[in-house]
Amino acid sequence: MAARSLLLPIIIIIITGTTIIFTPQTLASQPVNHLSSKRAPRFLSKHSYPIKTQLEEQQQYRYESKYFYQQLDHFSFLNLPKFPQRYLINTDHWAGPERRGPIFLYCGNEGDIEWFAVNTGFVWEIAPLFGAMVLFPEHRYYGESMPYGSREEAYKNASTLSYLTAEQALADFAVLITDLKRNLSAQACPVVLFGGSYGGMLAAWMRLKYPHVAIGALASSAPILQFEDIVPPETFYNIVSNDFKRESTSCFNTIKESWDALLSEGLKKNGLVQLTKTFHLCRELKSTEDLANWLDSAYSYLAMVDYPYPSSFMMPLPGYPIREVCKRIDGCPDGTSILERIFEGISIYYNYTGELHCFELDDDPHGLDGWNWQACTEMVMPMSSSHDASMFSTYDFNYSSYQEGCWEEFGVIPRPRWITMEFGGQDIKTALETFGSNIIFSNGLLDPWSGGSVLQNISETVVALVTEEGAHHIDLRPSTPEDPDWLVEQRETEVKLIKGWIDGYLKEKKTAFSM
Amino acid sequence: MAARSLLLPIIIIIITGTTIIFTPQTLASQPVNHLSSKRAPRFLSKHSYPIKTQLEEQQQYRYESKYFYQQLDHFSFLNLPKFPQRYLINTDHWAGPERRGPIFLYCGNEGDIEWFAVNTGFVWEIAPLFGAMVLFPEHRYYGESMPYGSREEAYKNASTLSYLTAEQALADFAVLITDLKRNLSAQACPVVLFGGSYGGMLAAWMRLKYPHVAIGALASSAPILQFEDIVPPETFYNIVSNDFKRESTSCFNTIKESWDALLSEGLKKNGLVQLTKTFHLCRELKSTEDLANWLDSAYSYLAMVDYPYPSSFMMPLPGYPIREVCKRIDGCPDGTSILERIFEGISIYYNYTGELHCFELDDDPHGLDGWNWQACTEMVMPMSSSHDASMFSTYDFNYSSYQEGCWEEFGVIPRPRWITMEFGGQDIKTALETFGSNIIFSNGLLDPWSGGSVLQNISETVVALVTEEGAHHIDLRPSTPEDPDWLVEQRETEVKLIKGWIDGYLKEKKTAFSM
Repeated sequence: MAARSLLLPIIIIIITGTTIIFTPQTLASQPVNHLSSKRAPRFLSKHSYPIKTQLEEQQQYRYESKYFYQQLDHFSFLNLPKFPQRYLINTDHWAGPERRGPIFLYCGNEGDIEWFAVNTGFVWEIAPLFGAMVLFPEHRYYGESMPYGSREEAYKNASTLSYLTAEQALADFAVLITDLKRNLSAQACPVVLFGGSYGGMLAAWMRLKYPHVAIGALASSAPILQFEDIVPPETFYNIVSNDFKRESTSCFNTIKESWDALLSEGLKKNGLVQLTKTFHLCRELKSTEDLANWLDSAYSYLAMVDYPYPSSFMMPLPGYPIREVCKRIDGCPDGTSILERIFEGISIYYNYTGELHCFELDDDPHGLDGWNWQACTEMVMPMSSSHDASMFSTYDFNYSSYQEGCWEEFGVIPRPRWITMEFGGQDIKTALETFGSNIIFSNGLLDPWSGGSVLQNISETVVALVTEEGAHHIDLRPSTPEDPDWLVEQRETEVKLIKGWIDGYLKEKKTAFSM
Repeated sequence: MAARSLLLPIIIIIITGTTIIFTPQTLASQPVNHLSSKRAPRFLSKHSYPIKTQLEEQQQYRYESKYFYQQLDHFSFLNLPKFPQRYLINTDHWAGPERRGPIFLYCGNEGDIEWFAVNTGFVWEIAPLFGAMVLFPEHRYYGESMPYGSREEAYKNASTLSYLTAEQALADFAVLITDLKRNLSAQACPVVLFGGSYGGMLAAWMRLKYPHVAIGALASSAPILQFEDIVPPETFYNIVSNDFKRESTSCFNTIKESWDALLSEGLKKNGLVQLTKTFHLCRELKSTEDLANWLDSAYSYLAMVDYPYPSSFMMPLPGYPIREVCKRIDGCPDGTSILERIFEGISIYYNYTGELHCFELDDDPHGLDGWNWQACTEMVMPMSSSHDASMFSTYDFNYSSYQEGCWEEFGVIPRPRWITMEFGGQDIKTALETFGSNIIFSNGLLDPWSGGSVLQNISETVVALVTEEGAHHIDLRPSTPEDPDWLVEQRETEVKLIKGWIDGYLKEKKTAFSM
């Protein structure tokens, strides 16, 4: 158990929230002859929580924590208890209402808002340039923003969870900022939205649905097209696989072959015991699938955080961590088995500092979890793994079994077509072109989520910033001395575009005022 | 009781649904010395239902009635029973999916959808010109579109009523049309929205919130600015009053003086009995306020339907009915009392055919009613009556007592700022200018609701069509041989604009297709 407490923070704490865990649905404590329980990857680990590293302690973004009482259902008049939405606020650099100082609002994702605040350095760094207030409202049902008085009550069952939806969260943000502006007599101050990952989706959607509330949105790594059949379901795993392949074909091949090796090992007598040893697990493996999921997660997560510099301040990883994983896999002496190679490689991810002596797999895959709920209601993102292009075991997304799993876990039936109906689907590019403006979709092509995002300029004001070497919303991270030029340039472009939105807004206001 | 059944249809059945009734909140069966219980005027009578007149029978708009099962709460995942939404559909003239035939969707208001269908001749008349499908979806909680299996269950209490909101209704429309298009392989067919009054508000809001679902909206007499303090609260009653004043100042003055006369008569011993006689009521008057409300309604309603031709096909009224009312009031012999003059005038409205021998006031002002619920939740439209410009008794809108009334009636607390937050408020013109397109706001200046609507062009594609002599959504009504030139021209302009939207859409599609 000592190992666990050491291990957990390292497995789970990640940059702006981006690990993935597949929740096994089937077959506990018995060997399997197939790997079929794949769930959609997550943006965040379910047990994520913020741990401040030394650098973060130094950064010391200053904010006050406040609470705003929100309607639990904005769209009905059921007599429900209001809940306290936490928001972090900093007005140190704000130019104030008379000078129409902007308000930078980060759309909180599926986790503790303090975590996003300390990991979204970009917003903090540019706020003084703009004389901007900084606001980080927390997403309902995460962190401290719990309906029904506690996490336990909020997550009790499908009824109490039922108001955990993106539309409700958007309304929370809109109501909060509208009320805040009224109280500060700041109605004329322009609001700019920021968000990464799911938060980026919220930022883009909020700009579409509440254009009167916010003048623009920087939506970083926001896969708003990862629904229904808008992009091929293989996209995500193909990108992960390509990230490995570009470093080393033999590495890619070793991983691709490892699943069969894993399966046949698991089917052997004492196979699970042997796998427990090979992978240095702290507790005896209950199913091959658990181990497969543990590996899956690591590969996908590595692709997301395949940053060009060591991300040591969040978790100890080298720069270009996939390169390092592949070096280890490829560099084993001749005669090393496939599974031993895999263990060597994966240790880069799970044990870069070498401090761990054994590994703990996800210990509560069936616990009620916010993102799992969202994935089982609105956020149905079909994911398959293709036979050829993917290094993962082949898997075809099957909606029926997905739905079954959701029914088993939550007693809820997903609405897989709702998001595209509500926010625009197949034809969202036309909608963005015709009705959207002032949105930046920023993406790094190493990020497997980039495949479901907007990668082309849509119009003069709905633009895509794509970086070949970028990973999951790297642009929102705090700047570092190691930032490559393309990242510095990307952020400069973003600042320039945001400045354009604000200038345009102020000019319009001035014209209206002088008329 | 015999008189009642005769009277009711005549009092209540109105053109595209536009009578008003103030629900008295206080003081039953006793004299009052003030008239203070004013509620916001209604678009529709609460007991409205369609009665086909001879002309309507001749028109015989043909449609099928179908049902689509909708989520009761689109924005939560509570395990609620789905409900059947009725929609009327006609595909006789539809050019079909291959030729991208348009779909004309009328946003159902607060009443039976068949009633709106027979009274929205404009849509039926122009559909063949466009090769358009005609679709009239019913608004939830009205007509046959009842949650919980029956009107009785749906209207049982605040909990069952809680999903009666505009946002849910918009989502119903959007889900229905999206599903229908998918089933008909008609995804590429452009949808054009129509709506009058509250339905016009829905059409405009739907165009803003679901621009990817519909390419444009004709919002006729849609008072989307009649919230908070966006327009002065006196606007509505001032317009009603001006409609009378422009016909005759003495008529205006007589009405203005009548409220005091009414009050002092009511305060006399046997005053209510005397008022019962003067106004030929079928049953003894219980409070002066009931009578005042009955008169209020008539004046406001007369202003709404102050059409330039006899609207005999819906209810027997002469052209320019206010002119006729004032002729009666002014034309009484010298010595006629104020109240007797008022009775003479009001008889134009309540008894133009002269068939009635006594009058029945609204018999169930406290019954649970859909629009009252909406007014007590989201649709809080502050209305005052000014001392000078209004012919009504002076009244200052008081939100506290409004809220109290809602609590008493429904056990619900209104959210008076929600609509402006959700759809844009003070700055909605900027929002419309910057993010809206393809919306026609049509209004007639005789219509008291025009004061809360958009009366100026906002941009090249968000335009206001204003007719000086028009009343409540006259443009949506069936054409008649008596239509004045300005009305014919207005409709021609509307057809031209709608054609422009569709042509633009098809051109864009073609370009996209050929790329």
